[in-house]
Amino acid sequence: MTSFTYQAPTKVLFGEGAVSQVGDLLKEQGAKKVLIHYGSRSAKESGLLDKVCKACEAAGVAFVTLGGVVPNPRLSLVYEGIELCRKEGVDFLLAVGGGSVIDSAKAIGYGLANDFDVWELYDKKREASACMPIGCVLTIAAAGSEMSDSSVITKDEGGIKRGYNSALCRCKFAVMDPELTYTLPPYQTSSGAVDIMMHTMERYFVTEDTLELTDGMAEALLRTVMKNALILKDDPRNYKARAEIMWAGSLSHNGLMNCGGPKGDWASHQLEHELGGMFDVAHGAGLAAVWGSWARYVYEEKPERFAQFANRVFGIPETGNPKKAALLGIEAMEDFYRSIHMPTNLEELGLSVTDEQIRELAKKCAYGGRTIGSFRALDQMDMEKIYRMALKGKA
Amino acid sequence: MTSFTYQAPTKVLFGEGAVSQVGDLLKEQGAKKVLIHYGSRSAKESGLLDKVCKACEAAGVAFVTLGGVVPNPRLSLVYEGIELCRKEGVDFLLAVGGGSVIDSAKAIGYGLANDFDVWELYDKKREASACMPIGCVLTIAAAGSEMSDSSVITKDEGGIKRGYNSALCRCKFAVMDPELTYTLPPYQTSSGAVDIMMHTMERYFVTEDTLELTDGMAEALLRTVMKNALILKDDPRNYKARAEIMWAGSLSHNGLMNCGGPKGDWASHQLEHELGGMFDVAHGAGLAAVWGSWARYVYEEKPERFAQFANRVFGIPETGNPKKAALLGIEAMEDFYRSIHMPTNLEELGLSVTDEQIRELAKKCAYGGRTIGSFRALDQMDMEKIYRMALKGKA
Repeated sequence: MTSFTYQAPTKVLFGEGAVSQVGDLLKEQGAKKVLIHYGSRSAKESGLLDKVCKACEAAGVAFVTLGGVVPNPRLSLVYEGIELCRKEGVDFLLAVGGGSVIDSAKAIGYGLANDFDVWELYDKKREASACMPIGCVLTIAAAGSEMSDSSVITKDEGGIKRGYNSALCRCKFAVMDPELTYTLPPYQTSSGAVDIMMHTMERYFVTEDTLELTDGMAEALLRTVMKNALILKDDPRNYKARAEIMWAGSLSHNGLMNCGGPKGDWASHQLEHELGGMFDVAHGAGLAAVWGSWARYVYEEKPERFAQFANRVFGIPETGNPKKAALLGIEAMEDFYRSIHMPTNLEELGLSVTDEQIRELAKKCAYGGRTIGSFRALDQMDMEKIYRMALKGKA
Repeated sequence: MTSFTYQAPTKVLFGEGAVSQVGDLLKEQGAKKVLIHYGSRSAKESGLLDKVCKACEAAGVAFVTLGGVVPNPRLSLVYEGIELCRKEGVDFLLAVGGGSVIDSAKAIGYGLANDFDVWELYDKKREASACMPIGCVLTIAAAGSEMSDSSVITKDEGGIKRGYNSALCRCKFAVMDPELTYTLPPYQTSSGAVDIMMHTMERYFVTEDTLELTDGMAEALLRTVMKNALILKDDPRNYKARAEIMWAGSLSHNGLMNCGGPKGDWASHQLEHELGGMFDVAHGAGLAAVWGSWARYVYEEKPERFAQFANRVFGIPETGNPKKAALLGIEAMEDFYRSIHMPTNLEELGLSVTDEQIRELAKKCAYGGRTIGSFRALDQMDMEKIYRMALKGKA
């Protein structure tokens, strides 16, 4: 019977010019010394970093800065951040960027609040007992890290990408101004849209009973993201479309789309994590490249679920033949991915993966002998097959 | 341009048997001495109150109890609660019941944490600076008070019913077991469904731009509540249907359905508050009895919005004639109300209201010369007209 725990306590300030409230939010949190954590060029060049620093000064909050976070954020910079914060007596972490920057801040927060090597969390050897408080100014709609309980870090040696989830790391506040995403390159905008959709779809594709209410909200979210991702292709400075996608990004991954259902499948995410670790691809693009192959590999476990998706998200009639509707729905999803210039296989993702690399990807993904996914539990052999299917996607 | 603040921090434990976790939740909150606040018979007779008391004992949390909360909860009991809590050194309030009990606990919480007469909040003379922490075990799906920032109290003399909203009173946790609602009388189940729908509809009917994402989620919520309210008519112990409606009740009023839009209209609620104060009717039934008259009075301000509602909630085709579609949608809503034995006018609500009483209702509703509503701002004369239209509803 339906049961769940839900708590998404992050205070969201959403809208044009919301950045001006960063100082008040930090004071509300009692922050005395803040680490302003950011990526590379864009936060600086856009003037955003300056605005944030000035807001801190105006609020009388001291700060230090640490930039250099890259997509698939690195453990080495996390260690650097922990050391800097210890030295400087930082008591609050402010991430200015997208999911990578927020995830890096979360890892720094765990490292500061626990007296062991923070990688042990991501390596599933330990559990966190606390996390330094974190806030964020979001500049990319994608990962949903601004409201989520998750963070994903890549260990530099070996490119090992691992996630760790705990309510301790949820942001205290998230400042979300859709205008900050106007200048994202189209590829990154599309990749973000895929990531957002996949956070909902990984929760949607389960074999167990779900709540109709959650299904209905998830389907509305998917339709909304698709419609607005297409608008942004031609009109990247469309405030409304940016707002729809930005808010969808938060709701997709804050736990709301889980309610009434089990934890979700997550196999596509885990297959992609290995690609991200080995080849450093954009996360959303990597997800788009493997999803269709995953879907065709597993849909027969419960074709009715895929048929519902096909019907409610794409308007594909329920024909009484759920397998047929399921396959049409998978194709429709891939058609959409292509329409926003996202790949639907590894070749389109720009990768030429050798057979040895496929075995290596599957071996890393199946670490500790684990299976992934719940719609259909997948072992190392299954993973190999899906990676292989994904080389060229649907024949 | 779309902007909003959203924060709904309540920790929800949802599912069969969730009550067993009350002790742990209280300890997590650091509660030392709890007021267990409840209504009349049912919490006692069902054994729920016993379970809660035992959970407190098992967790080593001391408690006192105060029952007697009635629908349209009274200020006099709030005063009694404040006095009892001061005497007993209570540091946490646990509401065991529906919206009335939670609202009463919220008022007690305000009274304890502020050094002035708590009615001054509801009378809009003061603002609260704090509130004693509150948790709840929900037994009625309706008011959404378990996650909302609102509470409504009725002053005994004169039957003056007023609401006060502030983030300070949001429950720290909400224990939600759909089974606890199995034994609600059918009239109360239906009245709850209306209240839930109206919390979303009051936010939905605005003339300003909204987010499609919020619209889509709101429409899904309305469809879900209607479908499951009909199931409960014949099968009141249907866990799944109870779960759908219970979770809808929380999401409808926790702020989520506001996101991307302005604050909403709320005129129907305010018109009903006066009915509740004067005649002590069930809140949801009172809302159903005035909504159609309100809708017909205001829809021409923006018929397109009502036409969208008609289309997406009831499948009424968009004919290119939004006024016609709007009226068909209003009728469809009233048909649904009747199908779950809810009134669509004051006569069906069982009231025989005199002309003098109508003037009195409007006068009280327009206190301080205020207007209500935003879809169309309504003054005292408008209120009188709507109450008069509602006497017999659609001719």
